[in-house]
Amino acid sequence: MEISPIAHIFTEFSDKFGIPRQSGLAKDTIGRIVFEPEYRNPDALKGLDGFSHIWLIWEFTECHTDEFKASVRPPRLPNNSHMGVFATRSPYRPNALGLSSVEIADISPDSDEGPIIYVKGADILSGTPIYDIKPYLPYADCHIDAKGGFAENVGDYRLKVHFPDDYLSRIPEENRSAAVEVLAEDPRPSYAKNDPEKVYGLTFAGHNIKFSVNYKNLYVVDVF
Amino acid sequence: MEISPIAHIFTEFSDKFGIPRQSGLAKDTIGRIVFEPEYRNPDALKGLDGFSHIWLIWEFTECHTDEFKASVRPPRLPNNSHMGVFATRSPYRPNALGLSSVEIADISPDSDEGPIIYVKGADILSGTPIYDIKPYLPYADCHIDAKGGFAENVGDYRLKVHFPDDYLSRIPEENRSAAVEVLAEDPRPSYAKNDPEKVYGLTFAGHNIKFSVNYKNLYVVDVF
Repeated sequence: MEISPIAHIFTEFSDKFGIPRQSGLAKDTIGRIVFEPEYRNPDALKGLDGFSHIWLIWEFTECHTDEFKASVRPPRLPNNSHMGVFATRSPYRPNALGLSSVEIADISPDSDEGPIIYVKGADILSGTPIYDIKPYLPYADCHIDAKGGFAENVGDYRLKVHFPDDYLSRIPEENRSAAVEVLAEDPRPSYAKNDPEKVYGLTFAGHNIKFSVNYKNLYVVDVF
Repeated sequence: MEISPIAHIFTEFSDKFGIPRQSGLAKDTIGRIVFEPEYRNPDALKGLDGFSHIWLIWEFTECHTDEFKASVRPPRLPNNSHMGVFATRSPYRPNALGLSSVEIADISPDSDEGPIIYVKGADILSGTPIYDIKPYLPYADCHIDAKGGFAENVGDYRLKVHFPDDYLSRIPEENRSAAVEVLAEDPRPSYAKNDPEKVYGLTFAGHNIKFSVNYKNLYVVDVF
């Protein structure tokens, strides 16, 4: 089956490194969905303003893999456990399709680029092609008693972020809380070991944030 | 982007007519997911047994449309209202991708056809190709305070089903409650007007069920 992008999403994530592992974890990040010229019709969004969330079906552009790997190593599982690819949301899957539910922040029906949907919490690389947008239907999509498998047992991995004011002020004010959220989600590669001397770099909102981590504490050491 | 089926799902729905409008509405219907030969590896499902629900991304095989229609008429809205295609789950969309969350009923890791996932509540035509299977992650996918837009205001359309024992006994016992559920969901085309004389036919579990509807009552009049 051949599918073609209907839109692209533009976010503060210009680099794969640092993208939250699931949508909604960094709720203050704003993404902008811009339709392809042939779909720039405000009628196509009629009624969407009554919904709070949408589904995006998109492409893992940086993770194509030719060979089928049945199992993957999800982040944050003890002992580098392997899980089946269909039991994970890993990007390394036969069809590189991503699925995210995001909150609608605003809909601008008639901009110079056609209708724009602004969304919160998109865990998606900037420039990613989107293949479908569907409304989130609470009665069909929200299973409050669903069991989350091994993903429920990863524990509290969130980091306490120490971001000196001097560095924080270099980030545009509207991106600051999102930057802290993204750091708190622990953007280190999943194979990282605790090494308080190691300095990592995160590109976010056009800035490079340097930080190191000692157990549950993350220290920002430079921003440029 | 070219995508290829990883599996096919086999359900009791051999005909588009009568398929519930969203997944999970007819919870007693069982679907069987059979992987393509190259993905028949039980390792690919490792860890899935800890989850209660999965997402399926699949193809609306009977609804391809060449021309982009920005708006559609969702079923059960008053006055034949039109809504934007991206504000609906209509099959008539630029990329004919369907999205359903279904409950895992059982996983058979090692059958003659490789691993099989049995699921409940699949609103999908039998034989439909599946492009991805992902675990349902409650912390990311369940938004309990989400607003459901116009889809919340369709009212109580469920029908009271009158299914004489004589006819019901012609359906295999394991399919009976599912058949009643599917009928209660009102499988008439959305443009149907109230006409108690009109007889409709539903194909389900290999049987043809004839029925008529008078307002909120559905009467089964034959099964063969």
